[in-house]
Amino acid sequence: MAYFQSKPSSGRHFLQIPGPTNVPDRVLRALDNPTMDHRGPDFGLLGARILAKVQPVFGTEQPVIIFPASGTGAWEAALVNTLSPGDRVLMCETGWFAHLWEEMAGRLGITSELLGTDWRRGADVPGIEARLRADTAHAIKAVCVVHNETSTGATSRVDEVRRAMDAAGHPALLLVDTISSLGSIEFKHDAWGVDVTVSGSQKGLMLPPGLSFNAISQKALAAAETAKCARSFWDWRPMLASNATGYFPYTPATNMLYALDTALDMLNEEGLQNVYARHDRHAEATRRAVRAWGLEVQCDDPRHYSSALTAVRVPEGHSADGLRATILQKFNMSLGNGLGQLKDRVFRIGHLGDFNDLSLMGTLSGVEMGLRAAGVPHKPEGVQAAMDYLSGNT
Amino acid sequence: MAYFQSKPSSGRHFLQIPGPTNVPDRVLRALDNPTMDHRGPDFGLLGARILAKVQPVFGTEQPVIIFPASGTGAWEAALVNTLSPGDRVLMCETGWFAHLWEEMAGRLGITSELLGTDWRRGADVPGIEARLRADTAHAIKAVCVVHNETSTGATSRVDEVRRAMDAAGHPALLLVDTISSLGSIEFKHDAWGVDVTVSGSQKGLMLPPGLSFNAISQKALAAAETAKCARSFWDWRPMLASNATGYFPYTPATNMLYALDTALDMLNEEGLQNVYARHDRHAEATRRAVRAWGLEVQCDDPRHYSSALTAVRVPEGHSADGLRATILQKFNMSLGNGLGQLKDRVFRIGHLGDFNDLSLMGTLSGVEMGLRAAGVPHKPEGVQAAMDYLSGNT
Amino acid sequence: MAYFQSKPSSGRHFLQIPGPTNVPDRVLRALDNPTMDHRGPDFGLLGARILAKVQPVFGTEQPVIIFPASGTGAWEAALVNTLSPGDRVLMCETGWFAHLWEEMAGRLGITSELLGTDWRRGADVPGIEARLRADTAHAIKAVCVVHNETSTGATSRVDEVRRAMDAAGHPALLLVDTISSLGSIEFKHDAWGVDVTVSGSQKGLMLPPGLSFNAISQKALAAAETAKCARSFWDWRPMLASNATGYFPYTPATNMLYALDTALDMLNEEGLQNVYARHDRHAEATRRAVRAWGLEVQCDDPRHYSSALTAVRVPEGHSADGLRATILQKFNMSLGNGLGQLKDRVFRIGHLGDFNDLSLMGTLSGVEMGLRAAGVPHKPEGVQAAMDYLSGNT
Amino acid sequence: MAYFQSKPSSGRHFLQIPGPTNVPDRVLRALDNPTMDHRGPDFGLLGARILAKVQPVFGTEQPVIIFPASGTGAWEAALVNTLSPGDRVLMCETGWFAHLWEEMAGRLGITSELLGTDWRRGADVPGIEARLRADTAHAIKAVCVVHNETSTGATSRVDEVRRAMDAAGHPALLLVDTISSLGSIEFKHDAWGVDVTVSGSQKGLMLPPGLSFNAISQKALAAAETAKCARSFWDWRPMLASNATGYFPYTPATNMLYALDTALDMLNEEGLQNVYARHDRHAEATRRAVRAWGLEVQCDDPRHYSSALTAVRVPEGHSADGLRATILQKFNMSLGNGLGQLKDRVFRIGHLGDFNDLSLMGTLSGVEMGLRAAGVPHKPEGVQAAMDYLSGNT
Repeated sequence: MAYFQSKPSSGRHFLQIPGPTNVPDRVLRALDNPTMDHRGPDFGLLGARILAKVQPVFGTEQPVIIFPASGTGAWEAALVNTLSPGDRVLMCETGWFAHLWEEMAGRLGITSELLGTDWRRGADVPGIEARLRADTAHAIKAVCVVHNETSTGATSRVDEVRRAMDAAGHPALLLVDTISSLGSIEFKHDAWGVDVTVSGSQKGLMLPPGLSFNAISQKALAAAETAKCARSFWDWRPMLASNATGYFPYTPATNMLYALDTALDMLNEEGLQNVYARHDRHAEATRRAVRAWGLEVQCDDPRHYSSALTAVRVPEGHSADGLRATILQKFNMSLGNGLGQLKDRVFRIGHLGDFNDLSLMGTLSGVEMGLRAAGVPHKPEGVQAAMDYLSGNT
Repeated sequence: MAYFQSKPSSGRHFLQIPGPTNVPDRVLRALDNPTMDHRGPDFGLLGARILAKVQPVFGTEQPVIIFPASGTGAWEAALVNTLSPGDRVLMCETGWFAHLWEEMAGRLGITSELLGTDWRRGADVPGIEARLRADTAHAIKAVCVVHNETSTGATSRVDEVRRAMDAAGHPALLLVDTISSLGSIEFKHDAWGVDVTVSGSQKGLMLPPGLSFNAISQKALAAAETAKCARSFWDWRPMLASNATGYFPYTPATNMLYALDTALDMLNEEGLQNVYARHDRHAEATRRAVRAWGLEVQCDDPRHYSSALTAVRVPEGHSADGLRATILQKFNMSLGNGLGQLKDRVFRIGHLGDFNDLSLMGTLSGVEMGLRAAGVPHKPEGVQAAMDYLSGNT
Repeated sequence: MAYFQSKPSSGRHFLQIPGPTNVPDRVLRALDNPTMDHRGPDFGLLGARILAKVQPVFGTEQPVIIFPASGTGAWEAALVNTLSPGDRVLMCETGWFAHLWEEMAGRLGITSELLGTDWRRGADVPGIEARLRADTAHAIKAVCVVHNETSTGATSRVDEVRRAMDAAGHPALLLVDTISSLGSIEFKHDAWGVDVTVSGSQKGLMLPPGLSFNAISQKALAAAETAKCARSFWDWRPMLASNATGYFPYTPATNMLYALDTALDMLNEEGLQNVYARHDRHAEATRRAVRAWGLEVQCDDPRHYSSALTAVRVPEGHSADGLRATILQKFNMSLGNGLGQLKDRVFRIGHLGDFNDLSLMGTLSGVEMGLRAAGVPHKPEGVQAAMDYLSGNT
Repeated sequence: MAYFQSKPSSGRHFLQIPGPTNVPDRVLRALDNPTMDHRGPDFGLLGARILAKVQPVFGTEQPVIIFPASGTGAWEAALVNTLSPGDRVLMCETGWFAHLWEEMAGRLGITSELLGTDWRRGADVPGIEARLRADTAHAIKAVCVVHNETSTGATSRVDEVRRAMDAAGHPALLLVDTISSLGSIEFKHDAWGVDVTVSGSQKGLMLPPGLSFNAISQKALAAAETAKCARSFWDWRPMLASNATGYFPYTPATNMLYALDTALDMLNEEGLQNVYARHDRHAEATRRAVRAWGLEVQCDDPRHYSSALTAVRVPEGHSADGLRATILQKFNMSLGNGLGQLKDRVFRIGHLGDFNDLSLMGTLSGVEMGLRAAGVPHKPEGVQAAMDYLSGNT
């Protein structure tokens, strides 16, 4: 059971939303250690260790800033540190979270130009290139991409976005949200030429919500020198100055840093490549289950399939939210809901974070039994298909 | 992961041996509270509360003694408090644990008379009655029954044993081991006329191992006055004297008592009848899976099916232990092994304690995928059969 | 020991900085529960419960917003929700934290007018009244006061500030930072007519850092409608809209909310008035110790003594930081350092949060032994003076 | 606060009974890990590691058996494995616990010959030698000594007992209870020729109660082959057979083993000699406080002073239990009570386990303030004397 539940239930809740994910016991037991003096000598040693250890997960040797704030804050930090009021950005609207980021930009005085999709695939790379080529005046100051769109289960090809920007010879910054991909799907801040990578603690990093991140290129740092958006809490400069010695300019979320330190150890012990392969495997098993049920995966470009979550479309005339409520009530599992234009049209299965084959099978069994219980038309063959795949006999 | 594992693994280990069971987070968080003064005033209040709260789980209004020792100790306590060296007991040998109890009795100077079975069912009630009728001299001082034989998955009908003893008009004590049934399968110490009920913490009570119990009838208490077995640690009398005010005669396992207090709250919140029904449901789903795989349940008397675990026979020529090793290695799940004459012939699925439908489905999926991976002949229809049952569409 | 320490130590670290404070075991054990779905039905119930329960600690029946960010963020939120770039505020510069707040205001485009002190007392109430009376054009949009100045141990009389503002008939908002007072020193948001109360989790609320708060008056809410500072993460409006049903507009720091829920229970169980009285008592004992050592309390207006911490001046020619280093190294206790103009001139003893007489005595003993070990001139009579007071024989 | 308290209190309870001691957070966080399969391959690795790591704390390279039972059980194990009903032992009656051990021996059919003391010193070494020399028939099968008598705070010189036995040329076994000394006061099972060392988890090992130990010499193992006491749970032989591969013959207290593994790491990180020196230092500081109060230490032979606890005599006409009740009620500290003939005459201060200077000063301050509050005549100079000693300026 969780800390709070309104009625008794036995066994563990299946938290299969696409984040927050199931926090490993080892991380929870790091989290609950006594808080320490964040100005004392030991803290500096711990801080420096964590700041160094977090870089490889971003695929970077450049600074990674850790905010004592949940992921939305890191979106804001990416914008206010690099842009000025009135600046224009190209926002790749791949789904609900891209939409929310655009909304935020507007509140901060940034003008977004939307490059839409049908919410069934990643960012429109040719569209980006075309738009940038057309922007000969370089009015566009940044291209914003959500690496893994949590609302649709589509992963944008950031490497291709980079190549498109290079091909267009455009100087815009590349800002990428990896909140639901980092630590689950390979990401290369440096190699892909990302300028600001935004992330959060509560997905692939296997922590509770409460920390967020900006990995920052030299070009972004330079932009921060001239950016005019007012900023204080989110300001990179005092952060970088303090981080140099392992400290933070204001009170960090100390216990969350304990948890992060431990979670990074776990990722390293498993090996990042193994972690990514595990996510790929579970995503493939899930998609096979979905197809065997006769349902449709929301993402319909296989090159953009997400390894972190799968959004599943329910047949016309059926309610995804009704299905989710049935599954929660009967099988003690939380699934993600449809957002924005997908409201009640899809449910989302998170298969990211601290996860394994049998937890996935419990999850898929819960979906299959839920489909039946809720009267959603399907073929009862999804669980079998997933087992076929996982046990290696496809 | 557990406290220790020799290689990294992601997600939760599936601990599906028939005990120790998966300890709920809430119980672990009670366990890890600071130890308190076991002679201070607050301890007496806590002790009295726990001693009262534990009685209903045994179905008794009579004293329940809590030993700071694992379950085997409570077997010893039951014997040494009621018997004298040279005494004779009738031991219903339903499987390996009954065998171990008999072995212990022998070490303590008690002579056991075995009433065997084929290890595929509960205690032989007509046999008990016949033997007691024949014992006109009342040489038999106690009848020992394992309520739920953990090695075979067979539950003896203790109510019928009681009726057989009454029918025979025999004064022997009735000693019952409920280590793997208490809190999972209904048990009625008082209504069934049990004299000593033995139990442990690490199964249906959802605690780690480290506590054990004796529920005691007035008749057993009277026997304790004349029993000649040497005893000190296990002696009921100083325990009962101290328990009267909520204390213990020697240092109790304080933190385990915290855990017990919380676990009893959880059982009460769910409701004992709901707990038993949940176990019945999961056992039935498991047996349906076993049959659908084309395998055989070790217990072959449906009246004795265990709701706590299911022992499954592997086909001739195949190794149950090899299967278990495959499942542990590939799917991170522990299953119980075959014991004694069943070594390598059965594997045992624990479905007791803090458990729910999706954890069961993860478990059964792990077995089904393991059967495939280990090359054990089976039909891949068990998981489907279990889902059919659980989702209510059999 | 904490999660990390660079060399082994036995026993508990004494974390006697004026925050983060010692987090009670019970709160840590709430914190480490599994994260739950922040969009699920149970979360709304929990959220509504917490939002209601937090109000009395602020002395308010008006909305209290909880940010998933550390305390500095709530300062920013108070400013950006109520003010517009170019606005002027009257900042009562009582010490380092007031200075930092002013610095932040500047970064956000707000002009601060400083009303200084000698850093040995609370806000200058007559000065506030005089300045406001002089501001006939009502150019000053807000008066900013740090209730308990953590750098000096001086508590401003917010009630008097309110009366001065009323006496001046000035419409400025009253913004008050209670980061190091809330839950330790009585505070009455409503009764004192505060417009925005800023607070954080890691002091009197006995939580780790990671949550911060704004309690908001109707007048402040009205100001938020017209305030022009760009804001998104800190924007009250979507927060209030979501909070109405117990939810949050973006991912909350779920596990910190568990901890908050439990900490609020603890405060209520002890009783807020008892909590305040306990802090008063420990502060008085500490000041008596300081005087008995022959040292000087930094705050020299008894009406402004802080019950949360005591800043102690070291004699000329001695280093407060050297003393602190000695105490940390020899006695495993962290004390607060001098900040700004008080650097190396004072050390600060935190006696707030989850604390009791014997922990205070351990703390004061550590200071007294540290004074000796570091060769700071003093009379060895402080511990005795504190015991005299605490044991009721002054 | 502990898991249970009947009224709210703030800050940490001071658990200064001479055991159970304050369990370090790190140990509690080991304890609360998920229970693992005690028959699985990883358990064997963990078990072997622990069994090896525990030996140095006993000063032995011989087997150490770990019982899933509290300390009293290990007393019983020592007796029933080495002796036969009717055997005679020489019991050095240094206080209440020696008395309880004798009482237990009697219940198990062993005849104890008491070698008394005035309960103000350790075992009477010349008396042992004299008695053994007189026992030319070697009727005495074992000499039983409590290393650190928890009821009086007197530590017997086990090395001298060994030399006395050797001098007498007597073949009796030497059984030593180290329940309240192990991990606090140096002990050398091998070097001192001890045959069975009895210990428990809840004192110097810094664990909750629930584990107990027998370290066993070859001579004791040989005795076990012929000893006639009935035994099963306590039988060393199946234990040793299973331990050889890291397992246990019946269910071990798995989570307590996690805690033990961690506690042993902590002792090793600090260094056993440092641990002992720390205990010596705190004991000396405590005795100086006692004398400065004008009170009397119960142990009046300085060679037998205990470094684990100090029993303090209250002046005639005053109640030690009244004082303890006052201290518990007013200062939230538990102290040990007087036992047997010392009932209400002494109170006992535990200064063992996970402890440091400032916790000791909190403890002694609590005693001093308690003496005042309870009206027990004393000079208020004890805390000062302890600080003088601890800060190195005696």
